[in-house]
Amino acid sequence: MGKRPLDILNNALGKPVIIKLKGNRSFRGTLDGYDIHMNLVLDNAEELLKDESNNDSVKKLGSVVVRGDNVVYISP
Amino acid sequence: MGKRPLDILNNALGKPVIIKLKGNRSFRGTLDGYDIHMNLVLDNAEELLKDESNNDSVKKLGSVVVRGDNVVYISP
Amino acid sequence: MGKRPLDILNNALGKPVIIKLKGNRSFRGTLDGYDIHMNLVLDNAEELLKDESNNDSVKKLGSVVVRGDNVVYISP
Amino acid sequence: MGKRPLDILNNALGKPVIIKLKGNRSFRGTLDGYDIHMNLVLDNAEELLKDESNNDSVKKLGSVVVRGDNVVYISP
Amino acid sequence: MGKRPLDILNNALGKPVIIKLKGNRSFRGTLDGYDIHMNLVLDNAEELLKDESNNDSVKKLGSVVVRGDNVVYISP
Amino acid sequence: MGKRPLDILNNALGKPVIIKLKGNRSFRGTLDGYDIHMNLVLDNAEELLKDESNNDSVKKLGSVVVRGDNVVYISP
Amino acid sequence: MGKRPLDILNNALGKPVIIKLKGNRSFRGTLDGYDIHMNLVLDNAEELLKDESNNDSVKKLGSVVVRGDNVVYISP
Repeated sequence: MGKRPLDILNNALGKPVIIKLKGNRSFRGTLDGYDIHMNLVLDNAEELLKDESNNDSVKKLGSVVVRGDNVVYISP
Repeated sequence: MGKRPLDILNNALGKPVIIKLKGNRSFRGTLDGYDIHMNLVLDNAEELLKDESNNDSVKKLGSVVVRGDNVVYISP
Repeated sequence: MGKRPLDILNNALGKPVIIKLKGNRSFRGTLDGYDIHMNLVLDNAEELLKDESNNDSVKKLGSVVVRGDNVVYISP
Repeated sequence: MGKRPLDILNNALGKPVIIKLKGNRSFRGTLDGYDIHMNLVLDNAEELLKDESNNDSVKKLGSVVVRGDNVVYISP
Repeated sequence: MGKRPLDILNNALGKPVIIKLKGNRSFRGTLDGYDIHMNLVLDNAEELLKDESNNDSVKKLGSVVVRGDNVVYISP
Repeated sequence: MGKRPLDILNNALGKPVIIKLKGNRSFRGTLDGYDIHMNLVLDNAEELLKDESNNDSVKKLGSVVVRGDNVVYISP
Repeated sequence: MGKRPLDILNNALGKPVIIKLKGNRSFRGTLDGYDIHMNLVLDNAEELLKDESNNDSVKKLGSVVVRGDNVVYISP
């Protein structure tokens, strides 16, 4: 099976990750934990947003638990 | 696995949380309970709404049980 | 786990509840039963509707069984 | 758990029911059977439709098996 | 439980059925098989279509295997 | 249960099939394998497309693994 | 069952693949791992995008873990 997807998450613990969710939401933060459903714990999380003028902005969220079924991809 | 997502919820019991649901709904309240499906119990819950003029408003809901499959993220 | 979500439903048996479903449907009625899927039994149920002029109206449904996967939240 | 949702369906066997499905479809008919997935058997089933002038019309379907994951609610 | 939904399908084997799928697709054909997921085998299957002028047309498909999670209802 | 859906797929191994996916995607190719989730292996696969002028075109994909939950129907 | 879908993925380990996701997202990269849910590990991954003028562009992502339920097809 090559590298297992959850092992890649394990290697990314404590490191910055980009998370893309369904509905085109993007977050970045430090991966602090996960489980077999790909539920994720992010620390110092920020949601990456576009404002009305299509400029990038950032919404600071602190610690978040993301429910795994929303995840499209995780990029360590 | 680092910090387990459900442990983070456990640590947040009795504390204020922000909940983002699919369909862009937002709630805040005190996390009073949860289960392995991420079904949640919120006390003093409020739904955070935009009115027609895009101003913020709040709808007080008291106690609510949120079905877990609606959850995008929970921010303690 | 604090208060378990299904225990909250159990405490609400025989009492009035508001149910919000996916697709922005709202019901109120007396919670007469539930199961582990959050399938619900409501008695004296009413669907809360907006008419064309955005006025509130009510559709009386009597007894209904709601399939749990439609539920967003239940407010006792 | 109060009245169990499937017990309510059992009590409705042989009686007329209204079924609301996702996508705003409505059926009425005699409930002739069900299973634990809320798959349903309706006899003398009719789909309740709006024509182009928003008038009610009815499409007779006879016997139908409805897959349970489409169900929003069942009203005996 | 009255008549079980899968028993109704069993009784319909070898007989013509109408199948309505999510996304408003309709098929007719001879029900040649099914399984517990409501995956279906249709023989002499035809998809029932509307052309641009809203006239009915038919697309002959021969034998088809329909994945059960698409099914809204089956009418024997 | 009549002919089982997966047996029909087994009989189609090594033969040309048409696959219709959710979102109105169509593929044709040689069915080279499948599993119980209806995950499929197609060889010499082509996606059948409409260009801007609504003319048919074809995109050659070679070998593809299709995830079963996308499948609407398979026509051998 | 012919060639099993996951065996095809196994044969593609270390080789370039194209991944099509729901919502019409496309990625290419080296398949570095997978699991039974079709969660995937891609190395040197790139998302294939259209810019406003409908020209192709590429967003380099490095290593990504894709959650399997987003996958439409994988082409080795």
